[in-house]
Amino acid sequence: MMTKTKVQPLLVNYKTLEEFKRFKEYGNQELAMLEDLESNIVENDSESPFYGVYYGSALVARMSLYRVRAKYDNYFVPPQDYLALWKLEVLPDYRGLGYGKALVEFAKSFELPIKTNPRINSHDFWEKMGFQKATYDVERDLGENPLIWMPSGVEERDVNA
Amino acid sequence: MMTKTKVQPLLVNYKTLEEFKRFKEYGNQELAMLEDLESNIVENDSESPFYGVYYGSALVARMSLYRVRAKYDNYFVPPQDYLALWKLEVLPDYRGLGYGKALVEFAKSFELPIKTNPRINSHDFWEKMGFQKATYDVERDLGENPLIWMPSGVEERDVNA
Repeated sequence: MMTKTKVQPLLVNYKTLEEFKRFKEYGNQELAMLEDLESNIVENDSESPFYGVYYGSALVARMSLYRVRAKYDNYFVPPQDYLALWKLEVLPDYRGLGYGKALVEFAKSFELPIKTNPRINSHDFWEKMGFQKATYDVERDLGENPLIWMPSGVEERDVNA
Repeated sequence: MMTKTKVQPLLVNYKTLEEFKRFKEYGNQELAMLEDLESNIVENDSESPFYGVYYGSALVARMSLYRVRAKYDNYFVPPQDYLALWKLEVLPDYRGLGYGKALVEFAKSFELPIKTNPRINSHDFWEKMGFQKATYDVERDLGENPLIWMPSGVEERDVNA
């Protein structure tokens, strides 16, 4: 029987930060969260930009989602708040079960444009999810490979204009 | 006998773009360069933000280096032009020969601060090259793991100030 995958916001605490270590894209962001928690700069169980999927009590998929304010929008017309999505990752034993798709659909449910900078070799997945390659602009994108998704009524900004 | 590794600017042409395909971090940037060349938006042999090392006639190492203007500097004090370095990569058969180091030293020779967003598991290399982890700031860094290098007289900007 299929059950709907539940996507939930992840709170900053030692258990979650320990679970984050199982993901390949563990980096400065998680280290900073750990330091902030250890030095009481953030409260235990404060909000994080991460959302995840649990299998039983184990975190098996996650993504980071951050609302970028309209004044920093260089991707869309009209300029507006958009979501930056990164670190979308499903642990190896839990792939092919739709968890990645559930996370992206959760992100789309905000009805805001989305920008992501995917890792190499994940373009097929993003294409299936309706994302398209943003026109590359070296000054804006530097080392990134931006992919974007737009709800209706939103267009890509013309970087050559 | 040791010879000094020669780092040279790479020009946009079909030969170079074909050689770029051998590098793992081939992405939107290279595809955009190819499209621009095919549609005559750029001239053959125009400048690219890439520098490389040849072994005989084969490109075996490369990096992209871009000068970010002071008004966009969110990393250093005083705010100033800095170099964004990305896609530093040495082809597998040519590793351990100092080509990566030669490229980074070439970047340092501009005497500007450098920012890079390294791939996972390359931190030891960057530490040896004198780079340090920038204090993580979610709004500024999003999914990045910024590492920075500063020439004397430059300091990291305090993101909490």
